[in-house]
Amino acid sequence: MSSLAPASRAVRVALVQLGNVTADKSYNLQHARDMVLKAASGSAAGKPDLIVLPECFNSPYGVSYFPTYAEDIGYTPGEPYDVEKSESQSIKMLSSVAKEAGTWLIGGSVPEHDVATKKYYNTATVYSPNGELVAYHRKLHLFDIDIPGKIRFKESEVLTGGNALTHFDTEFGRFGLGICYDIRFPEMAMIAARNGCIAMIYPGAFNMTTGPLHWELLARARATDNQIYVAVCSPARDLTATYHAWGHSSLVDPMGLVISTTEVREDIIYGEIDPKKVEEARSAIPVTVQRRFDVYKNVAE
Amino acid sequence: MSSLAPASRAVRVALVQLGNVTADKSYNLQHARDMVLKAASGSAAGKPDLIVLPECFNSPYGVSYFPTYAEDIGYTPGEPYDVEKSESQSIKMLSSVAKEAGTWLIGGSVPEHDVATKKYYNTATVYSPNGELVAYHRKLHLFDIDIPGKIRFKESEVLTGGNALTHFDTEFGRFGLGICYDIRFPEMAMIAARNGCIAMIYPGAFNMTTGPLHWELLARARATDNQIYVAVCSPARDLTATYHAWGHSSLVDPMGLVISTTEVREDIIYGEIDPKKVEEARSAIPVTVQRRFDVYKNVAE
Repeated sequence: MSSLAPASRAVRVALVQLGNVTADKSYNLQHARDMVLKAASGSAAGKPDLIVLPECFNSPYGVSYFPTYAEDIGYTPGEPYDVEKSESQSIKMLSSVAKEAGTWLIGGSVPEHDVATKKYYNTATVYSPNGELVAYHRKLHLFDIDIPGKIRFKESEVLTGGNALTHFDTEFGRFGLGICYDIRFPEMAMIAARNGCIAMIYPGAFNMTTGPLHWELLARARATDNQIYVAVCSPARDLTATYHAWGHSSLVDPMGLVISTTEVREDIIYGEIDPKKVEEARSAIPVTVQRRFDVYKNVAE
Repeated sequence: MSSLAPASRAVRVALVQLGNVTADKSYNLQHARDMVLKAASGSAAGKPDLIVLPECFNSPYGVSYFPTYAEDIGYTPGEPYDVEKSESQSIKMLSSVAKEAGTWLIGGSVPEHDVATKKYYNTATVYSPNGELVAYHRKLHLFDIDIPGKIRFKESEVLTGGNALTHFDTEFGRFGLGICYDIRFPEMAMIAARNGCIAMIYPGAFNMTTGPLHWELLARARATDNQIYVAVCSPARDLTATYHAWGHSSLVDPMGLVISTTEVREDIIYGEIDPKKVEEARSAIPVTVQRRFDVYKNVAE
């Protein structure tokens, strides 16, 4: 149930709160590449093992932009993917920089155009340190909100939601992946944790209304309830863009404490995901063995 | 799924952060009665409709006390209960004061001794304004924690966990009930909200370690994820007792905002549970209709 994948040591993580996401996709890709390499050059604690980019890092965030910036990825889950033959320049860049950095890379998310089905998605991809595309998550829950006088946004005007949960294995343990609004749905983190994930990673871009209300709260809640690490990685705030991201990329530990965070500008934050801390939290407050599946269902089964 | 029971107007709630829980049960019952009547005398906003007492209000909190203070309640769910014939002086007091106050009353919790089965429980009871016992919740998840160097507590040394979820209906709508550690298990609030509850009420007594870590976080998380109100009602802090309660009784609204709270001393706080605010939250951020039960299970079904 709550068995963890074997892990040798703490994972050093870098969250890239990317700034300068412009209308120029080539610039965006080059800047993201530069920032991944900068993150890989490390902190005082050493080179990171895993680098995370934010949601929608190659395109301005907005439904009118998605079709223009979308790329055909052509990935079939469970089948090998040849990056060399990819139609997607963003996938090629991410694979190449993961290899150059020699780290795991969660390539934030990009607008995807599935040419075969003519559908658009908001898609996160994951690369091993040798540049292999190892996981792929289409945002499951689309960001359709309407808070009167504050913000209205409807991804579903253009995008289609994915239809799968995404976990991936590394030599450091198993990770779960969601995108932004996915974090509002507790089932994803519950299922990930109960299937051995030691962390949920959410590239995301909350806004100036839901950011102060819920960004940190939801990250801390997912971590505390499931006694896992949670990373939320936002773009920097750009008040010249149409969508103003909340920023405040953060890493939260299995006791729900924010162990690394930042403000609103472009930044790289570092922190450790330590499987021992997961075990300690679960030993101290043993909810993982106290659940009453005789009274309510286990969403992970 | 998320249909709400009909509701005429906002419910005025009073949370009694009871102090002076002593070794003298008669005193404890008299003091709780006095404080319920004081709460019923109302605030500037008017007389409350629902009054809440904290966990373990008639006994010091500790496994060594439970057998001594426990009473045989003899309640069978679904069957009428004759308070006049009850063996439990605490149930008699609660019923009588609910009637005298003319309000709904959640009688915190008391140690229960089920003489027939020889088992002990931590049990919350609910009374209508005419003193009828209408609901009954045995703490489902027992408080067994061991945070090295901080706190060790093991309710299961004496208590048995309940085996049911508890919802009850009023003219103001449906409510869900949990006790303290139950709040760590998200399923309870998810199921309550998906079955039409507009609020979860948790009499509880977090401590000086888990209180600052998780008390407010968990209340806000349950409210935000499920877009319901959440009330957490603690005893006041008594540093002469063996168990030091965190205090900070609070009412949280469906957007996750703390709308009423207090510090650590004996106090009564008031607030409103407004079904319109539940609807507004669900309209603004429509997670209740965006869940992907095609991808993961619905714990409420």
